[in-house]
Order: sequence, then structure tokens, then C-alpha cells
Amino acid sequence: MKPQVSIIMGSTSDWPVMQKAADFLNEMKIPFEVNALSAHRTPDEVEVFAKNAKANGTKVIIAAAGMAAHLPGVIAALTPLPVIGVPIKASLDGMDALLAIAQMPPGIPVATVAINGALNAGILATQMIATGDEELYKKTVAYKENLKKKISQANKDLSEFKFEYRTN
Amino acid sequence: MKPQVSIIMGSTSDWPVMQKAADFLNEMKIPFEVNALSAHRTPDEVEVFAKNAKANGTKVIIAAAGMAAHLPGVIAALTPLPVIGVPIKASLDGMDALLAIAQMPPGIPVATVAINGALNAGILATQMIATGDEELYKKTVAYKENLKKKISQANKDLSEFKFEYRTN
Amino acid sequence: MKPQVSIIMGSTSDWPVMQKAADFLNEMKIPFEVNALSAHRTPDEVEVFAKNAKANGTKVIIAAAGMAAHLPGVIAALTPLPVIGVPIKASLDGMDALLAIAQMPPGIPVATVAINGALNAGILATQMIATGDEELYKKTVAYKENLKKKISQANKDLSEFKFEYRTN
Amino acid sequence: MKPQVSIIMGSTSDWPVMQKAADFLNEMKIPFEVNALSAHRTPDEVEVFAKNAKANGTKVIIAAAGMAAHLPGVIAALTPLPVIGVPIKASLDGMDALLAIAQMPPGIPVATVAINGALNAGILATQMIATGDEELYKKTVAYKENLKKKISQANKDLSEFKFEYRTN
Amino acid sequence: MKPQVSIIMGSTSDWPVMQKAADFLNEMKIPFEVNALSAHRTPDEVEVFAKNAKANGTKVIIAAAGMAAHLPGVIAALTPLPVIGVPIKASLDGMDALLAIAQMPPGIPVATVAINGALNAGILATQMIATGDEELYKKTVAYKENLKKKISQANKDLSEFKFEYRTN
Amino acid sequence: MKPQVSIIMGSTSDWPVMQKAADFLNEMKIPFEVNALSAHRTPDEVEVFAKNAKANGTKVIIAAAGMAAHLPGVIAALTPLPVIGVPIKASLDGMDALLAIAQMPPGIPVATVAINGALNAGILATQMIATGDEELYKKTVAYKENLKKKISQANKDLSEFKFEYRTN
Amino acid sequence: MKPQVSIIMGSTSDWPVMQKAADFLNEMKIPFEVNALSAHRTPDEVEVFAKNAKANGTKVIIAAAGMAAHLPGVIAALTPLPVIGVPIKASLDGMDALLAIAQMPPGIPVATVAINGALNAGILATQMIATGDEELYKKTVAYKENLKKKISQANKDLSEFKFEYRTN
Amino acid sequence: MKPQVSIIMGSTSDWPVMQKAADFLNEMKIPFEVNALSAHRTPDEVEVFAKNAKANGTKVIIAAAGMAAHLPGVIAALTPLPVIGVPIKASLDGMDALLAIAQMPPGIPVATVAINGALNAGILATQMIATGDEELYKKTVAYKENLKKKISQANKDLSEFKFEYRTN
Repeated sequence: MKPQVSIIMGSTSDWPVMQKAADFLNEMKIPFEVNALSAHRTPDEVEVFAKNAKANGTKVIIAAAGMAAHLPGVIAALTPLPVIGVPIKASLDGMDALLAIAQMPPGIPVATVAINGALNAGILATQMIATGDEELYKKTVAYKENLKKKISQANKDLSEFKFEYRTN
Repeated sequence: MKPQVSIIMGSTSDWPVMQKAADFLNEMKIPFEVNALSAHRTPDEVEVFAKNAKANGTKVIIAAAGMAAHLPGVIAALTPLPVIGVPIKASLDGMDALLAIAQMPPGIPVATVAINGALNAGILATQMIATGDEELYKKTVAYKENLKKKISQANKDLSEFKFEYRTN
Repeated sequence: MKPQVSIIMGSTSDWPVMQKAADFLNEMKIPFEVNALSAHRTPDEVEVFAKNAKANGTKVIIAAAGMAAHLPGVIAALTPLPVIGVPIKASLDGMDALLAIAQMPPGIPVATVAINGALNAGILATQMIATGDEELYKKTVAYKENLKKKISQANKDLSEFKFEYRTN
Repeated sequence: MKPQVSIIMGSTSDWPVMQKAADFLNEMKIPFEVNALSAHRTPDEVEVFAKNAKANGTKVIIAAAGMAAHLPGVIAALTPLPVIGVPIKASLDGMDALLAIAQMPPGIPVATVAINGALNAGILATQMIATGDEELYKKTVAYKENLKKKISQANKDLSEFKFEYRTN
Repeated sequence: MKPQVSIIMGSTSDWPVMQKAADFLNEMKIPFEVNALSAHRTPDEVEVFAKNAKANGTKVIIAAAGMAAHLPGVIAALTPLPVIGVPIKASLDGMDALLAIAQMPPGIPVATVAINGALNAGILATQMIATGDEELYKKTVAYKENLKKKISQANKDLSEFKFEYRTN
Repeated sequence: MKPQVSIIMGSTSDWPVMQKAADFLNEMKIPFEVNALSAHRTPDEVEVFAKNAKANGTKVIIAAAGMAAHLPGVIAALTPLPVIGVPIKASLDGMDALLAIAQMPPGIPVATVAINGALNAGILATQMIATGDEELYKKTVAYKENLKKKISQANKDLSEFKFEYRTN
Repeated sequence: MKPQVSIIMGSTSDWPVMQKAADFLNEMKIPFEVNALSAHRTPDEVEVFAKNAKANGTKVIIAAAGMAAHLPGVIAALTPLPVIGVPIKASLDGMDALLAIAQMPPGIPVATVAINGALNAGILATQMIATGDEELYKKTVAYKENLKKKISQANKDLSEFKFEYRTN
Repeated sequence: MKPQVSIIMGSTSDWPVMQKAADFLNEMKIPFEVNALSAHRTPDEVEVFAKNAKANGTKVIIAAAGMAAHLPGVIAALTPLPVIGVPIKASLDGMDALLAIAQMPPGIPVATVAINGALNAGILATQMIATGDEELYKKTVAYKENLKKKISQANKDLSEFKFEYRTN
């Protein structure tokens, strides 16, 4: 089956961060692919990738990069598919990457998530595809329910150990 | 026809900025609605809106807010629909709003665009819906072509007046 | 006895920081409770909590959150009780959380303390309640006296070892 | 009647900003006073003021200052009454004042509001006093209701003019 | 004569800033050209430009862009010619553009000048070419001498009016 | 009489800001001189100035510069006289100049004042000379008294108009 | 002999940083004292110290503090002696302390050095006193000479190992 | 053979960072030299160096410095040769050095690279010299090709292990 989401990293060293996007897509059973392509070191391959993405069946692109993070914007310039940008924390606490991804000029958006926010990139890609896929939408509803349960359980655990802090 | 995109502003004073999102959706012939709802002043209305958005036919929500901009994140917490956040420049050059929208914690993404980037929010909403709508996808291709033409024309105009700077 | 202060954390991982608020309230013998509730993951529970806080006897709420820290503001939107916000250092040295808590729009204040400033949140909650409780006010006077003694003692210790730096 | 809230400004030039705090207290019928006292130019008067505030019937102090804004912290060091700090935008977009007020060391809190956030300082002072005053609490409930009505009305106004953007 | 320097702007609105680079090159009698090409709106034209620049006789490229300023880096990725990047002040006081240009990853440098520093870009381009052109080097020596004279003259003017401030 | 303080500006355009330092020295009857010397445009004149300052009777140097503000540090490197640095607001709200002046490496201090803080530079120079001049010290005491009077008077003026805000 | 320089720290935990100021004064044989006094925890002791400093023979005060670093400014408000402020890195990389010390309002200067710049504070104090003490001035000349020798020696060491990088 | 590139560091402690510039120049067989010279501690040696650089055969200077990084600008003021500035991360994540190098005033450019971007400084120096040296230009073409190969290989490696994330 053709990948619907394409995860692109500027460097394979971004994989430990980006793996959470892949894990989420896996959990949602959305076919995806992962590639390392650099806007600066392999611009021609980036171009080939971006221009063929739609024809290859890709619906959403997740692009991660650090420092002067051009990769998401460069891809967004080359395809009308929605591009999600993940700022990678490599210098200046990731603030350089956040600005280089979020502050795109009018005409070419990049859907920016938090610094190192790979899980949210995976969720956002799923939500985008779910706008045209009811089955997938239901899965996102279930995921949200599950999130609540986890923190509710955490709260119950907390209720017990907090007792010693009650003064009366 | 039911609106597919819902534009929510924290304050009607954001309208001059957000109008560009509305104009773009209009140009793409995507039905949309505009509401002023404040995460802080009308939390109950925000909740009602967000929980019913899907049932009302909404596919994508665009939420704009300034300062400690909670509106996009609060909506994203209440619906699995994709939420696009527009940081409004109201203080600190909009940096506070950018961080309050982009730095969402794991589990609840907001697709953040540039400070005051309303046009890009409109385009991104269109790209999201186009993942499941081929006709709309074609319109985004046409829009991109048009962007190129404008700057190419600008360049031609530039070619003429720049001559006086040629020294030979 | 009903808790007068409610400490809410976005995540149980904030507990090592927030414990200092609890310890101070304990020392002041102010009944309190601790809960983990997320503005983003359990918005409905946050709403139930905030809307019932006054009826449950709560006088002051301390809310801690990191990144795009919405929890204090979301609670403040739902109750007229005073809300103290503690920005948690989770990314960008805590600057994102500080701005997302302090820069609240007109109408809905959050009493912001320093990044990871849980002790000060506990003191501030006490000072707030002491505006209507003379016994408690006296305890805050005593606490302040104690602070002075500690640093005065530190200074005496310093007086001794600093001698070796005197040149004459 | 003795003032319950004392508004202190580092300079009379801060009055156009701080007036909103005074207006709110006026609306709530809370007696207050306004003084210009500088932590740097009149430190002795600040000391006299702060040490006598409680005896004078003051319950909450609102202190505003810009640049290296020491006034709120200096007052907080001299009284156990709760101190609300308003960072005034005088340089660096007010970021210097925000940090100089919010980042207080452990032991001496200042309840910081947004840059130029004088209205919220007035509201917060009211909420603090309302922890021990049920009549005042009811007024804060009414104020919150009123906030909602204003934005709901704005939304109705918006509903009408937005029609021209509907495409169907 | 073929242009030795190519000035590229992301938008023709950058021309009032970039004109100073052109003026300087004109003064140095270095042939140059000016083009508006956008990394995001006309990526294919940027590619054609960058890949042919060397063959067209270009020795140095000056690229200006604002916000998430990708243009200089994108060009640098496509040619081994030296690229000078001028961050344009369009948002956030130009800090976003400065970081998006200066913080290039290892392997692909961009020679970054100050925000809106177009004159310095022109001088730097001249200095680069002068490494292989003794005649041009002499012109840069003359320019530096001239800079000194201007400020020395300013100082003389100052000497006169400052007299009234002398107390003795 | 020989100037005891030397005010150096990177550009004559800094004079409207620096005039306040001159006015204060005038008021204190401290002989001073004003020069425009640029660390970058007239490095040799800066060197001659700095190396001869002590022999010329100068006791303190005030140096003002904006952007990458090197002038104070460059002078401090060339003389053991104390150098006061005034960051001029020319770009980035003056933050670049503040950091370029304050963050001097170990061994070569510059006494940094606030952005555009020329008056404080004049006062600080006076305080430095007063460490060895009892007459001048008395003048600084008188100046401080005067500061208090001005704000006390302002407070009295405030007492009158504030009455209308009293509710009882 | 009476101390001429007084080093004040907000907390004894600042001593490892401030020791370098003490070491330098020791080397210059300037008598000094060290005290821990907090603007926030022991405001009365700070007042007593500052008001008596001149009478006690102090010529220069070095004050170190972190976070919302008020200590240098508070002391400067209470004495006309020159005050050197050392921003301590305790949070936000020390940026909060730098701004809270450097951005003093007109009338009350603090001579700010770099974040954790204790050595420079010691040198600057020496330079200030040397404006009225020729013997001490000569020592500062000697110190500067020594600085040069150290780096010249380092350069000689470098000359040897760098040889292996020469390609011809 | 005379060095064509001169690498200057403010401190020998910068060598571990700057070595990458030296390694690259070595690889390109460009003769170079390395010196430790401080703008602040050895200003006279810096002057001698800069004024003689051209006569000594130097074509490009790479200068590295941290904190209030004056070295690149000071050298640029003394020679018309192109100067590349490398901001060293010593405090504030290197942001102070970046601003102190990049924000040079009109007339004296410094070609700024990323924080700790020594490799890029070496590449940029090579590109500058290559504007007048065809043989060297060819080497830069080859280097760029090699960069692509490395990331393409990384991508191939990635293709294999990513398989386990494919869901179909």
C-alpha cells in the first residue's frame, strides 16, 4: 500500500525525535515512509521528492529540521500538499528552528508544531487525512479518550500519596 | 451549505488581520463561518462550539488569538478536528502569542502559522480539506501557479528600472 | 476540613517542583488538595473542578503548567477565585510558560510567579487568604522574620571565613 | 473609609496605564489610594509606606514599574501583604520589567500580571480581598457574567456583516 | 559586460533596503544585476538562476529575505559560489530573518550581515572579489580612507558646538 | 582646565541621547569633552585617544555605541581608565548593543548602563571621580536629595487629582 | 585598615562566582569586606549597610544577585557611592538578572558587568578608586601588561602545534 | 608558501571549535595560519596583525570570539580584507556573540556564520578565494557533490531499518 504520510528529516540524527511521529502513524495504521533529505545538501533530491509526492499517493508531509530550518518551507514551496514542520532543538534551545519554520511568508504555509514535537506532528497529519476519512476520524476520537484516561489514572494515583500532605 | 471551515477570533479587533483567511476561502469557494469567541471570557460558548463542530459539518478550525493565546489550544483540547492557530501581534511583537500557540504539549497539536499569518491559515485549511477532495486540490495547484506569475511579473518590471545601475 | 487551596498540575511530572508549595501550606497548617488535571487532555474535568471550586470551599487555586501553559488561564476563565500560575521549565528555559501564563488578556488575571516558583505560589496563596484571616496574617509575619534570621546567620558564618581575604 | 487597596507607581507618567486598575476598584466600590513612590528615588518613603500599610488598613498593594522594575519586589520585601506587580512597557517592549517583577527569588512572591495589565491588577486585588468577603465575591461573579455578554454581543454583530463572505 | 554580482530579493518591496548594495557596487564599478526571486513562490526559477550563476559569470550572490528567510540558504545549497545573506526586517525586528540566515547547518555557509545591512553586503561582495583582483582591492582601501575622513570631519564640526558645554 | 570626563560617540547621530550626560556633568561643574570616534571607521584615532587619555588628564571615559557596539570595549582594551558604556538603541530595541557592551570577557570591564541611559552614565562618572574628591561627593548627595523632592512633589500633585477616584 | 570595597551577595551560594572579585582586590592589596545581604529577605540590614557605607570608609560597592536581581539597584538608591552590579546566572541563563540590573531608570545608575562577571567587577572597582589614587593606577597598568603576556605566551604555544596543519 | 587564510581566536580555548575550519582548509590544500589574539587583551598585536595581513599574503581572515565578541569587527576595521566572524558559544547560548558579530554598522562588514560554525567559516573562506581561482572553485564543486553522497547513503541505510514501521 502506498504511504499516505511522508516523514522527511534533514539528518538521520533527528530520528530519535521523529520516531514518535512514526509510532503514532503506525498505531493509527496509516501507511507512511521515512526519508533523510537535506534542503541544503541534497536540494535536487528534495525537489524530486516534493514534486512527485502527490503522484506517489502522499497526502501529508512531515518535515523536521534544526537551526536555520529550511526543509519544511522548501518542500512547501514545491508542492501544494500540506506540510507539517517540526523544529528540532539543535542550537539556541530550538528557537532558531521554530522561527525559521513558523514565520513563513504569505502564500506558502507550514503547519508548525512545538520544538521537538514529533508526536503532535503525527497526530496532526492524522487529523488532516481524517477530514476526508470518517474511519480515521473515529480513531482520533478514541485516541483523545485514551489520553484522558491516562491522566485520570495518574490523578487517582496522586490522590493516594498526597494524603500525607493533608493537615487535617 | 454548511460551513467547512470555522474561523474563530478571540476578539473582533482581530478581524482586520483575519479577513485575509476569509478572503482566501471565499476565493476557493469553500463555505465558512466567522465567530468571536474568547477562551477566557466565554469559555462555555467555546466548549459548545468545539464539541459540536464536527456534527455541524466543520472540517477545519482556524483560531486566532494574541498575548497568552489560549484559544487555539483550548479548542484543540475539545475536538479531534485539526485546529490552525494564528498568533496575533498584540504585545511583545507577537512572540508571546507564537509561543503560547506553537508550544503545545504532546497529545494536542495546533498547526501554527506565522504571526498575523491569516492568509497562510486560509491556505493551510484548504490544503487539509484537499487531502480528501481532488477538485479542491486542483485549485491549490492553480493558486500556486498564480503566485509564481505575480513575482515573475514583478521581476520583469524590475529588469527595466534596474538598468540604470548597470555600469557597462 | 475542606481544602482552602487547590494545587493543580498539568502533569504529575510537575510534582517535584510543586511539592514546595504543598510543604509551605502544610507548614502554615492551611488545608489543601493536589490534583493532576490537564487543560488539554482532560478539559471536561478541569471545567468540573473549576466551576465547583468555590462551592467546595476552595479560596485560592495554584495551577502549574509548562510549554504553552494554558492551565492557569483556562481555570481563571471558569471561576472568579484568584488563580496563581506557576510556569514550569519544560522547554525554552521556561520562557514559553512564563509568557503563556503572565500575558493574560484584560478581564481574566492570573497571578504569575517565577519560573518553577512553587514556594512563592504557596506563600502568595497564604497572603491572599490572610487578607481575611488575622491569625494567618500573623503566621506570614513570623515566616518573614524567620527568613531574615537565616540569611543573618549565613552572614555571620561568612564573616569568619572571609577574614583570610583581608589584606591588612 | 480606609483604603483597602493601595496603588503605587514608580512615576506619575505610569498613570494613564494604571488608571484602569483604579477604575475597576471604583466600579467594585473598593476604597483605594494612589501614590507615586520610587524604589530608587524615594526609598525611605517606600519603606515608611510599606511598613505601615497593614496598620493603615491596606489589604492588597498594586505596584507598577518599568525597566529594571524593583518597586513591587522592594515593597514585597517590607510587608507580608500580597503585592501585585504591573510591568510597565518603557523599554524592550516591557520584557525587562516583566522579568524584573516575575522572577522574584524564593521567599518573597510578587503576583505578576501582563505588561501594562493594570485592569487585571485591579481584578486580581478584588479577587484576593473577596477570599474573605462574600459580598465582594458576588460582585466578581457578576463582572465575569458581564464580560461574557459583551463578547456575545460582539459575536452577534459579527454574524451580520460576515454574511457577505458566505459563498453559498 | 557580464554581471559579477547578482542581487536577489525575495520581494520587490525589499528594494528600498537593497538599493544601498547596488549603489555601492555601482560606485566600485562592479557590474551587477538585480532580480526578484522567491525561494517559496518561484523555487524553479531560483534553481535555474543558482545553477547557472557561475556559467553566467557571477562571482558573488547577495540574497535578501525577511521572516523565515530561506532564500540565501536555498541558493547556497544550489551553487558553490559565495552567498551573502541580508536579513530583512519584516517581523520580530528582523530577528527571525537573522536566525534563519545565520544559523545555517555545517556544509552550506551563508555570509550573514546585519539586519537590513545592504551596504555592508555590497562592501563584502567587493572584498570577496578583491581577493583575486588587485585593482579592486585598491578601491576598497580608498573607500576605507574615505570613511575615516567623514567621521573626522564630523568630529571637527562637533568640536565647535560642544564648546558651550565646557565649564571652564 | 583639562577635561576630567571624555564622552565618545560612535556617531554624531548619538548626540541627542548623549546630551544628557553632558548636561549632568555641566551641572556638577566637571570639565568634560565630547568627541565622535568610531571603533570601526577611525580605529587609529580611537587608539591615539585612548592611549593618551590618562596623560591628558581624563579620569573617566563615557563611550556610546549602537548595534554591534564595540567602541566602549575597544577603548577599555587600550586604557586602564574606567570606561562607562552606553548602549544606543539603533536596532533590535538596543538589545544587541546592550549585550555587545555588557558581556565583556574577563580582564577588561566596561561599566554598562541602561539602553540610551546617558544621564546615568554622567552620574556614574561623577560618582567614580567622587571616590577621590570629597567636594564632588557632597554634590552627589545633594543631587540625590533633589531627586526625592521632585517625586515627592509629584506625589503631592497626584494626591489632589486622585480624590475623584476615592469612593468614600 | 578600613575596607574600601564592600562585596555584597544576595545569597552565600553566590560566593563561588564572587570569589574572583575578592581575589583580584586581594592581589591589588585593596582592603575589602564580604557580606550576604538580601534586598528581599533582609531589607533593613541592606538599608543600614548602604546608609553607613560612606561613613565606614567604603568607596565602591559590588553587589551580586540573580533572577529579579534588585540588590544592586536597591543599594544604589540608598547611597551616592558608585555601585557595581554583577548579574548572577540562576535562571534564564542570567538574562533576567542582566536586565534587572542594567536597565536602571534615570537618576540611579548601576555599573553593570557581564553575567557572572565577578573578576571584571573587581577590576572596575579598582579602576574607580584609582581615579583618585595614582599608586593604584600604576597597579592597573601593570595588570593590563600582564594580561597581554599571558595571551602572547598562549600564542607562542599555539605556533608550535599548529604546524601540523600547514599544508606546504 | 605564505598562508592565504589566517584563523584568529580570542582565546586558545576556542581551538576545539575552530579546528574544523583548519581541517577544511587543510583538505582543500589552502595554506593557513592560526593565532590567538584578543581584541581586549592584546589590542596592539591585533592591530599589527591586521594592518600587515594583506602584505603577508593573507586573502581572508577568520576571526572567532565569544560573549561581547569584538575581535572580528575590530580586525575588519583595520583591514579591507574580507573577515569571517565565528560567534563562539560561551554564554547566553552564543546569542550575545552572534549579535556582537553580525550587527556591524554600515561601512565595516563581517561575514557572520552560525554559532560555533567553524566548518562553514572554512568553506566560506575557500569560496571567497575561489572567486579568483578556478582550480579551487572546482574543489568546492567536488566538496558539494560529496556532501550529497553522504546524506544519500544515510538515506539508503534508513530505508532498511524503517521497514519495520511500514504497516502494509
